[in-house]
Amino acid sequence: MDYPSVLEHIHAAIQPELERGQVATYIPELAGVPPRQFGMAVVTLAGEVHAVGDACVPFSIQSISKLFALVLALQAEGDALWERVGREPSGTPFNSLVQLEAECGRPRNPFINAGALVVTDILCSRHAVPEHVVTGLLRRLSGNPEVTWNPRVARSERMHADRNAAMAHFMKSFGNLRNPVDKVLDVYCHQCAIEMHCVDLARSMLFLANRGVNPLNGERVLTASLSKRLSALMLTCGTYDAAGDFAFRVGLPAKSGVGGGIVAVIPDTCGICVWSPRLDEAGNSHAGSLALEMFTTLTGRSIF
Amino acid sequence: MDYPSVLEHIHAAIQPELERGQVATYIPELAGVPPRQFGMAVVTLAGEVHAVGDACVPFSIQSISKLFALVLALQAEGDALWERVGREPSGTPFNSLVQLEAECGRPRNPFINAGALVVTDILCSRHAVPEHVVTGLLRRLSGNPEVTWNPRVARSERMHADRNAAMAHFMKSFGNLRNPVDKVLDVYCHQCAIEMHCVDLARSMLFLANRGVNPLNGERVLTASLSKRLSALMLTCGTYDAAGDFAFRVGLPAKSGVGGGIVAVIPDTCGICVWSPRLDEAGNSHAGSLALEMFTTLTGRSIF
Amino acid sequence: MDYPSVLEHIHAAIQPELERGQVATYIPELAGVPPRQFGMAVVTLAGEVHAVGDACVPFSIQSISKLFALVLALQAEGDALWERVGREPSGTPFNSLVQLEAECGRPRNPFINAGALVVTDILCSRHAVPEHVVTGLLRRLSGNPEVTWNPRVARSERMHADRNAAMAHFMKSFGNLRNPVDKVLDVYCHQCAIEMHCVDLARSMLFLANRGVNPLNGERVLTASLSKRLSALMLTCGTYDAAGDFAFRVGLPAKSGVGGGIVAVIPDTCGICVWSPRLDEAGNSHAGSLALEMFTTLTGRSIF
Amino acid sequence: MDYPSVLEHIHAAIQPELERGQVATYIPELAGVPPRQFGMAVVTLAGEVHAVGDACVPFSIQSISKLFALVLALQAEGDALWERVGREPSGTPFNSLVQLEAECGRPRNPFINAGALVVTDILCSRHAVPEHVVTGLLRRLSGNPEVTWNPRVARSERMHADRNAAMAHFMKSFGNLRNPVDKVLDVYCHQCAIEMHCVDLARSMLFLANRGVNPLNGERVLTASLSKRLSALMLTCGTYDAAGDFAFRVGLPAKSGVGGGIVAVIPDTCGICVWSPRLDEAGNSHAGSLALEMFTTLTGRSIF
Repeated sequence: MDYPSVLEHIHAAIQPELERGQVATYIPELAGVPPRQFGMAVVTLAGEVHAVGDACVPFSIQSISKLFALVLALQAEGDALWERVGREPSGTPFNSLVQLEAECGRPRNPFINAGALVVTDILCSRHAVPEHVVTGLLRRLSGNPEVTWNPRVARSERMHADRNAAMAHFMKSFGNLRNPVDKVLDVYCHQCAIEMHCVDLARSMLFLANRGVNPLNGERVLTASLSKRLSALMLTCGTYDAAGDFAFRVGLPAKSGVGGGIVAVIPDTCGICVWSPRLDEAGNSHAGSLALEMFTTLTGRSIF
Repeated sequence: MDYPSVLEHIHAAIQPELERGQVATYIPELAGVPPRQFGMAVVTLAGEVHAVGDACVPFSIQSISKLFALVLALQAEGDALWERVGREPSGTPFNSLVQLEAECGRPRNPFINAGALVVTDILCSRHAVPEHVVTGLLRRLSGNPEVTWNPRVARSERMHADRNAAMAHFMKSFGNLRNPVDKVLDVYCHQCAIEMHCVDLARSMLFLANRGVNPLNGERVLTASLSKRLSALMLTCGTYDAAGDFAFRVGLPAKSGVGGGIVAVIPDTCGICVWSPRLDEAGNSHAGSLALEMFTTLTGRSIF
Repeated sequence: MDYPSVLEHIHAAIQPELERGQVATYIPELAGVPPRQFGMAVVTLAGEVHAVGDACVPFSIQSISKLFALVLALQAEGDALWERVGREPSGTPFNSLVQLEAECGRPRNPFINAGALVVTDILCSRHAVPEHVVTGLLRRLSGNPEVTWNPRVARSERMHADRNAAMAHFMKSFGNLRNPVDKVLDVYCHQCAIEMHCVDLARSMLFLANRGVNPLNGERVLTASLSKRLSALMLTCGTYDAAGDFAFRVGLPAKSGVGGGIVAVIPDTCGICVWSPRLDEAGNSHAGSLALEMFTTLTGRSIF
Repeated sequence: MDYPSVLEHIHAAIQPELERGQVATYIPELAGVPPRQFGMAVVTLAGEVHAVGDACVPFSIQSISKLFALVLALQAEGDALWERVGREPSGTPFNSLVQLEAECGRPRNPFINAGALVVTDILCSRHAVPEHVVTGLLRRLSGNPEVTWNPRVARSERMHADRNAAMAHFMKSFGNLRNPVDKVLDVYCHQCAIEMHCVDLARSMLFLANRGVNPLNGERVLTASLSKRLSALMLTCGTYDAAGDFAFRVGLPAKSGVGGGIVAVIPDTCGICVWSPRLDEAGNSHAGSLALEMFTTLTGRSIF
C-alpha cells in the first residue's frame, strides 16, 4: 500500500479512538485544546510530503523539544554529555525524583524531565540567548523561518513549574546544574512552548533518516554514528515509561510530548509526525500511538 | 548518684569519645567549629541548674529549632496540622524526597526537613514577621531575652539550601505549601541559625517536663495532653532515622541537631541538653548520645 | 478513677466502634472469628486482675508472639542478635521486601515479619524442639500450663506462607538465615497460632513492668536494663508502621497482632491486654487502639 | 568489509579486552570457566557460517534460555501472556524484588528473572515434561540434536536458588504463579544449565532474522509480526539494566547471559552469537558487548 492510501486508511480507522484518553490539564492552555483533532504527516527523503487530517494545525510540541535540545547539547559537548546524564530507560514516571536520589542527581536519560533540565543547563552555559537555540535549529530543520514559541504557554508552564524546580534544585544540590535554577527553568519552559504542525515536524526528523545530514540544506547536524545512536535512544527512552510497549507495538524510534504530538523516523526512508491531543496513561497520544502502530503494520516497515 | 556527681562522671568518661565522629561540613560556619567541645546541663522543675564542661558556650541549634517551631504551629493549628504532615518515623534519611513522592507531598513527621518546612509554612501564614516567632518562644522559655540567630549562619544556610528548595518546590507541586518557596526557606534558615547554650536549652525544655506549663512564668505553652504527645513524637521521630536505636539506648524523648546539640526531657522531673559537635553517621552528636545513655544508666531514670 | 471504673467506662464507650474496621481474612480461621467481640484486662504488679467483656475468650495471638520469641532470642544471644536484625521503625508495611533489598537482608527490627523470621531462626538453632519454646515461656509468664497453639490455625498459616517464604529465601540468599526455610516457617507458624485470652496475656506482660522479673515465680526473664530496652523497642516498632501514631495517641509500649490483640505495659505498674478482632488499615485492632487511648487519657498514666 | 574480515579484525582487536571484567562466581561451575576465551559466529540467512576463536566451545547459555522459553510461552499463550508479565525495561537489577512489590507481583518483562519464572510457570502448566521443551526448541532451531543441559550446573543452580525462590514465592503470594515453586525452580535451573556454542546459537537466531520461520526446516516458529515484536523486546529489555546503553552502542536486538554469551539478530540478514566469560558491571560479557559494537561499526549495519 502506498503512503497516501495508508494515511487515508489510518485517518478513517482512527476516528472512534479520538474519544479516548485525556487531554493534559496541568496548564489551561493545554486543557483548552479541542480534543477531537488528529493529523499525520510523512515526509520522505526524496522530499515527498504526505499528510492527512489536521496535519497543518500547530500544536504545543512540549517534550518533543527535548529531542532537538539534545541534538544541540551533543553538538556542543559530544560524549562528555554522558557524564551528567545516563542513557537508560528510567523505569519510573517522567517526573519522578526517586531515581535521582538513588543515583546522586544524575538523571537516567535526556528525555525525562530531569535529564532535559541538564541538557538545557548545557545550552545555558554555551549560548548567550539560550531561549532561541532550539527554535533556531527547528527553523533550519523544517525550513520554516516562522517557527516560534507561544508566549502564553511559556508563561503558564513557568507558573506551574514547581515539580521541575524541585528536580533542578535537587540536581543542583548534587552539583549537576551549573546555571541558576530560575534561568534553566525559563529556557526549558520556552522550549516546551514551541508550536509546530505535523508536516514541519516530520520534515525536521529527516536528518535522522538521512544519517545526520539535513537534506534541505546539506548541513551535517550529527555524525552518521551519533545520528543512529540518537535513534536508539529514542527507541529505548523516547516515550516515557511506555517505551518498551511502544517499541513492541510500533517498532520505530520516536519521541512524544504531552501536547499530543509524536515524532518518529524510519532510517533511510522518512520522517513522521502524528498528533492527537488525548493522552493515554503513560502520557503519550492515544490515537497517535495507535496510528503509528497501524502505519508499521500496514507498510510492513519497522526497524525490526 | 546525685545529678552533680552523674554529670562529673559523664564528663570524665566522655573524654576519649570526643575524638570520634565528624563535624557537619555543608556550611563553613559549622565546619569551623572546634570539635573537641562538650557541655551538658540538667535543669530541674525545682529550678536547680547542674552543668559541666562547655555548657555555657553557644552553638547552632539547627534542627532543635524544629521542636519549638512545631510547638508554635500546634498552638496555631491544633490537630489540623496533621492533615499536612504525619507523625510516623520516616525510615529514610532526614532529607530524602523518596517518601514525599510515594505519599503525595505529605511529609512523614515534623522533625524531618520536609515536615519542618510545612511547619514553617504555617508560621509564615500566621505571623507578620515569622523570622522572629521561634526566637521569641525560646526567649520566653529560657528566660534569656538575648536569644537570637547568627546572621552569617543564616546566610550560609540559605546559600546551601538547594536540597530544601527541592523539597519545598516538590511539596508545593502537591499543594502542601502555601507561601512562596523563597519566603519559607528564608524563615527556615533563620530558625536553624539560632544560637543557644546548654543551660538555656535545658531550661527551654521544662514546659515538656511540666505538662505543658512554662515554670518560669506560669504560661501554658501546650495542654498537658499535647505536651505528652509531643514528647511521644520526639521519642519516635526526634533523632533522625536512628530514633529506634536512640530510644533503645537512651530511653528519653529527645531532639537533635547537626550543630551537635541534643535536648531531652524526663517527664515531671527535668530538662536536659547536651552538646558536642562531632556527629555519628545518623547525624546525631556522637558524644552527646553516649552522654545521655550514661545519664539514664547512672540515674536509673528513663521513661521505660 | 480506679481501674474497674475505667474499664467499665471504656467497655461502654467502645460499643459503637465495634462495627468499624475489617477482620483479617488471609486465612479462613481468622476470617471466621465473630467480629463484634471486645475484651480488656489489666493485671497490676500487686496481683490485682481487672477485666471486662470478652477478656477470657481465647484468640489467636499472631504477632504478639514476636515479643516473646524475641525475649527468648535475647536470652540466648544477647547483643549479638543486633548484628542480624536492626532496631529501627521500618517505615514500610510489616511484610515489605523493599527495605530488605536495600539493606542486604538485615531486617529493620524484630517485630516486622522478616525480623521475626530471623528471631525464629535463632530459636531453631538453639533448641531441639523450637515449636515449644515460645509456648513454654508463655506458660511460665501467664501461670497457665494449658497455653498452646491451635493446630488448624498453624496449618492454615503454613499453607498461606508464600510471602513469608519469599522473605525467608531472600534473607537466606544474603546469608541471614541459618536453618532450612521450611523449618523456620513451620516454627514461625506455630508461634503465630498460639491462642490465649486477655487476662493471661496481661499477666504475661508483668515481667516488663517489673524490670525483667516474672512476679509470679521470681524468675529473672531479662536484666532490668534489657527489659526497659525491650519496652523502648515496643514503643518505636511494636504496632507495625503506625507506631508513631500509636505512641502519640496512647503513649505506652505495646505489641499488636492481626488476631486483634494488643498487649501493653506501664512500667512499675501493670500489664494490659485488649482484644477486638476488627483491624484498622495499619493492621492494629481498631477498638483495641481506641480503648488504650481512652485508658491513658482516663488514668492520666502514660510513659510521657 | 566482508564478514570473515570483520570477524578477524574483531578477534585481533579484542585481545587486550579479555583481561577485563569478572567471571560470574555465584556457582562454582561458572567461577571455574577459564576466563580468557572469546568466540564469535555469524550465520546468514543464506546459510553461510562465519566464525572465529572459541566459536565451537560450548558454554552455559544461562539467561539466553529466557529468549527461547519466551518463544514457547508465546506459542502457547499468545497475547494472554502479557496479562502476567509486562514488556517494559525494569530500571532495576535483574534480580530485584522492589518492582515486584510496587506492581503486585507482575514482573516488568520476561527477561528479568521474575518474568522468566512466570514464563517457566506457563511451560510447566502446558507440558508434561517441561524440562525438555526449551532443549527441544533449541535442537530444532540449531539443527543439533545433541543440545542438552549440564546436570552439574543444573544441580548447582538449584542449590543457589534462594533469590529466585524468594521471587517465586513472592509472585505466588500475589497469585501470579500456578505451579509449585519447587517445580518451577527445577525447570528454570535446567534451562539455565543448557550448554551450546556460538555457531549453534547464531543459527538458532535465524528464525528472528527470517520473520519467524526457521530456515533450516521451514517451520513457522512465530508469526512475522510477533517475531519482530520479540526483537523489539530484546532491544529494550534483553541486556539487563544496560539495555539503553547497549542499544545506543550496538544497535541490535540481543539477549545476554551471565555465562558470557550474547545472541543478536540483524533483521532479514543473519543471526549472531558472541561469547567471552568476563562480565561488566551490568552482567553482560564485557568483550562480547565490545565485539558487537565493533561489528555494527565495521559493517555499518545496525537497525537504526
